[in-house]
Amino acid sequence: MKNKISNAVLMRLPRYYRYLSDLLKNGEDRISSKKLSEIMGLTASQVRQDLNHFGEFGLQGYGYNIQFLKNEIGKVMGIDHPNSMVLLGYGNLAHSIIKYSGFKSKGFTIKAVFDRSNKKCGTYIDGIPILPLNELEDYINNNDINIIIVTIPKDAAQNIISNLKVSKKIGIWNFASTDLKTPSNFVVENVHLSESLMRLTYKLWGENKIQKRS
Amino acid sequence: MKNKISNAVLMRLPRYYRYLSDLLKNGEDRISSKKLSEIMGLTASQVRQDLNHFGEFGLQGYGYNIQFLKNEIGKVMGIDHPNSMVLLGYGNLAHSIIKYSGFKSKGFTIKAVFDRSNKKCGTYIDGIPILPLNELEDYINNNDINIIIVTIPKDAAQNIISNLKVSKKIGIWNFASTDLKTPSNFVVENVHLSESLMRLTYKLWGENKIQKRS
Repeated sequence: MKNKISNAVLMRLPRYYRYLSDLLKNGEDRISSKKLSEIMGLTASQVRQDLNHFGEFGLQGYGYNIQFLKNEIGKVMGIDHPNSMVLLGYGNLAHSIIKYSGFKSKGFTIKAVFDRSNKKCGTYIDGIPILPLNELEDYINNNDINIIIVTIPKDAAQNIISNLKVSKKIGIWNFASTDLKTPSNFVVENVHLSESLMRLTYKLWGENKIQKRS
Repeated sequence: MKNKISNAVLMRLPRYYRYLSDLLKNGEDRISSKKLSEIMGLTASQVRQDLNHFGEFGLQGYGYNIQFLKNEIGKVMGIDHPNSMVLLGYGNLAHSIIKYSGFKSKGFTIKAVFDRSNKKCGTYIDGIPILPLNELEDYINNNDINIIIVTIPKDAAQNIISNLKVSKKIGIWNFASTDLKTPSNFVVENVHLSESLMRLTYKLWGENKIQKRS
């Protein structure tokens, strides 16, 4: 077994998790690698290879136990831990993240929102307090927070993260359009929406161009 | 020159574009592959290899012309075209996409929002009309629309997309938590936020687990 899951497999695991969740909801309890590969658009050998990375889930000719496989992938992906989050900035994007229900069912809780605007501070949104930015560091250190969701502009974001004195492991879910420089106890996952949109326009316009040039 | 850019390079090109844009804003006009590789966290040979995919940009020992390189990447990525979009669904996420200013500067325009709620239809948000869902197909066919942003739940999304009779090439920017089945003239780019969050918790908790198991 490999020590570390490759990036390509890591990109696919949440998709497996999503499909397995859907299968469970539809009342299925077992699935063959062949069937799973068909609904996911992969080859059966790819599926077997991916799932072998972290244990012997499948029984030859008998298929995978969906609930067990889902749980194991959930454990590997770290969502069996309670994940407590704070939001950095309270704007439109932060608002839509708070309103999105898909995280709660996976054990993600938003505990507080931090904003530099004095007007917003002291109020609540869906029961979540909006607190002043200068309380962020104490709040993270004194509460069981392990994820910071960054929804403020890039320069402000980098400034705040650079000055944060926190010694535990912290995950940054970064929506700011920059690659944040962070201390070594921080890990970062970026959601760069503009880049995603550019990948779409590449699929729309770019592929033809490259072919014309050759 | 290759006919098709690999997925790994495609994932990096928008990042090049972002860094080159920042360099231009800072008044820079030329950059060496070495310098560019340092700020992007890649090797210089990786940068040269990536940028060689679609033309001879660099002059040995003289570096890249930043404006030219940015324009060329923009062309390859298809953002030199005007990209006109409609939003499917008017909820919190759609609202934050409308309010986000980062797209406009890259030539992306949201022309209309389609919602099934009769209450919302006929109103405007930031000058963008909210129209009834049953006008979506005609609107796309009669206007120069090439991107549909999907922000409605997955079953409704699949249902609408499946029944859409549009013959031109369409890009779907999909925020619904599903892999949409689309006609062959559609291309899809997914933003699966729950999956992104799972990759973050993997970095937080999962990597250690895999190592402990071995």
